[in-house]
Amino acid sequence: MTWVAGVEGSAYGVTNLPYGVFSRDGEEPRVGVRIGDLVLDLAGAEEAGLVLAAGAFRAPALNRFMALGRPQWTAARQRIVELLTDPAHRPAVEPLLVPLDAVRLHLPFEVADYVDFYSSEHHAGNVGQIFRPGQPPLLPNWKHLPIGYHGRAGTVVVSGTPVVRPSGQRASSAGPVYGASVRLDIEAEVGFVVGVPSPLGSRVSADDFADHVFGVVLVNDWSARDIQAWEYQPLGPFLGKSFATSVSAWVTPLDALADAFVPAPEQDPPVADYLRDVPHLGLDLRLSVEWNGERVTEPPFDTMYWTPAQQLAHLTVNGASLRTGDLYASGTVSGPERGQVGSFLELTWGGAEPVKFADGATRTFLEDGDAVTITATAPGPDGTTVALGEVSGTILPAR
Amino acid sequence: MTWVAGVEGSAYGVTNLPYGVFSRDGEEPRVGVRIGDLVLDLAGAEEAGLVLAAGAFRAPALNRFMALGRPQWTAARQRIVELLTDPAHRPAVEPLLVPLDAVRLHLPFEVADYVDFYSSEHHAGNVGQIFRPGQPPLLPNWKHLPIGYHGRAGTVVVSGTPVVRPSGQRASSAGPVYGASVRLDIEAEVGFVVGVPSPLGSRVSADDFADHVFGVVLVNDWSARDIQAWEYQPLGPFLGKSFATSVSAWVTPLDALADAFVPAPEQDPPVADYLRDVPHLGLDLRLSVEWNGERVTEPPFDTMYWTPAQQLAHLTVNGASLRTGDLYASGTVSGPERGQVGSFLELTWGGAEPVKFADGATRTFLEDGDAVTITATAPGPDGTTVALGEVSGTILPAR
Repeated sequence: MTWVAGVEGSAYGVTNLPYGVFSRDGEEPRVGVRIGDLVLDLAGAEEAGLVLAAGAFRAPALNRFMALGRPQWTAARQRIVELLTDPAHRPAVEPLLVPLDAVRLHLPFEVADYVDFYSSEHHAGNVGQIFRPGQPPLLPNWKHLPIGYHGRAGTVVVSGTPVVRPSGQRASSAGPVYGASVRLDIEAEVGFVVGVPSPLGSRVSADDFADHVFGVVLVNDWSARDIQAWEYQPLGPFLGKSFATSVSAWVTPLDALADAFVPAPEQDPPVADYLRDVPHLGLDLRLSVEWNGERVTEPPFDTMYWTPAQQLAHLTVNGASLRTGDLYASGTVSGPERGQVGSFLELTWGGAEPVKFADGATRTFLEDGDAVTITATAPGPDGTTVALGEVSGTILPAR
Repeated sequence: MTWVAGVEGSAYGVTNLPYGVFSRDGEEPRVGVRIGDLVLDLAGAEEAGLVLAAGAFRAPALNRFMALGRPQWTAARQRIVELLTDPAHRPAVEPLLVPLDAVRLHLPFEVADYVDFYSSEHHAGNVGQIFRPGQPPLLPNWKHLPIGYHGRAGTVVVSGTPVVRPSGQRASSAGPVYGASVRLDIEAEVGFVVGVPSPLGSRVSADDFADHVFGVVLVNDWSARDIQAWEYQPLGPFLGKSFATSVSAWVTPLDALADAFVPAPEQDPPVADYLRDVPHLGLDLRLSVEWNGERVTEPPFDTMYWTPAQQLAHLTVNGASLRTGDLYASGTVSGPERGQVGSFLELTWGGAEPVKFADGATRTFLEDGDAVTITATAPGPDGTTVALGEVSGTILPAR
């Protein structure tokens, strides 16, 4: 129970405590932790001797803290919980709490490499049916390995950053044409952030997931479907994705999600040894997507076929090294129902079935000025709820 | 004419002067420039007041210098030429020259994002014939845009770094099997290094190529063909490439290649406006690939269909930002003849026609212990030759 006022019943209580980077007018960005609608200034707390993190909180990104490793992550979290629950600390800690609406939130970590997986069977199946009707919806490799590709790390932006509609080439019956994308879409995803690196030429086993992965962000992998469809053969998505990828300002530490791990869907055929994770656990995260303020879909993350531990093992099985700040995203999260899909491509079935809003408006893909917000919750201890930081963005007209 | 002894006739003369990062025993890595078989310690030269670069030479990477922009790049180069040609500077400069064999060379720049294009018509055509026999060798989009994808920046390594044979899944008649790659290949490429960044949501035109691109490296994009073939549908290459990409230790500044720009092959059909570069120029670089010391192929870079300026314009047409340290590679450089291809896949026609060496040995793909070195030269001013720094690597057994 925290002594901080107004936090009771909040999904940002002491069982959550996500990390982020914030600044106040004229001050350098620094690391903080969210409690209710306040931010605890961790750089200030460390300066005051209240918490120890090798100076890593006085930094414009979480990377230094994330590089310290799990024992230090756990120790810092335990100490922060102490500070926020033991009333004896209140006089020292209270002056370090800043209202959220008085700060600016920054990209919480410097992204090293960004990998995007494709691990929802329902999403891959829907996409297969929409783009390759009459053929088997899943390609032959899909159930043997978590399909993934590298995205552009330099265009990962923090929630709230406006997204300029991308231009590019798309196919038409008269041949390719150039212009602003007319099929701009979202992908609701969950991202995993690597703290502890691994050396080149070695692999990281699924068992070592929690030693390397610091925490979780929500991801909106904005996608221009028309650009993507024309460019992606044979080397995969490129400009259809690289214009922007939004992540939440808050990184939820794995420790806050201890109660959210649940058995993942059974895998058949059996997977290769290096992909075997015992126990085989996914995360019970409930996503929600709002389009101009109206909830349009609720993707359930516990339906994902490939688990984050399997994705990590796959990513490194060829000896690829990990760096602090590596981000790997799950791929679009889609459940079995239409109201559970993670993209508007699926929600409108390729644009054929527009979404109808309460005010009578309809949409197939994103129009200029549209806003999308993705939120998620997870079960916390003792019946509490843990909220993941939201990821939102508004579409600006093409330039 | 330089006063430095032993440089006459060298392809690393004062018309070349590539930049790199070096260290001597127990000292921090710093920026240097190569002249003959010596390195001029630029950090030392700046400290001694001999050259000005805002302190950017006392750094373990070229990024700070590359971020300064073309006027500063040109000024520094002119001053370095002065220092190495005017005998009046000899007493001050000579103590700053270090023999190459007394230094260790490091990755010359911190790689931000790594993009790999696919811009050789001969290469794309060969790959099409090998993998899709009986079908048109080029896909419909190939002549409309420079196909590319993002690779793993964190596994870009400097020339000389050993490459551990990657393991992964490959297809077999009995279904996928896991093991060490049995079709390990090279891709001889030319890489372009971005110095000056661009903001998110804006584009960089082909005309602005020289304002953003600092210089050129040689690239070996090691490729596990069996892993790649099984994984790449539908999102492109991933683990088949991400285990290692080698770059030369020396970055040749664009200024050293002024005499190497030549008209690029005519493009038909005409390209979209944003891809039009006037004049339409490629680079007359002659690559050479040695396999265990024997030259096996000589890829001519002037045959590339898409130019580096077009690649840059394409990369940013969707509003993707550039960062200092972005690396984009040409894709495998293959000319029209068998002796001009940039991969062993093409050289051995999918492994069907082994290469025979002088000692009677044969090869299809790389075996453990094999060494590959890629070199290149370009025409310099007044009949001189400019060498690009070599990129080499040796295969270590799978772990």
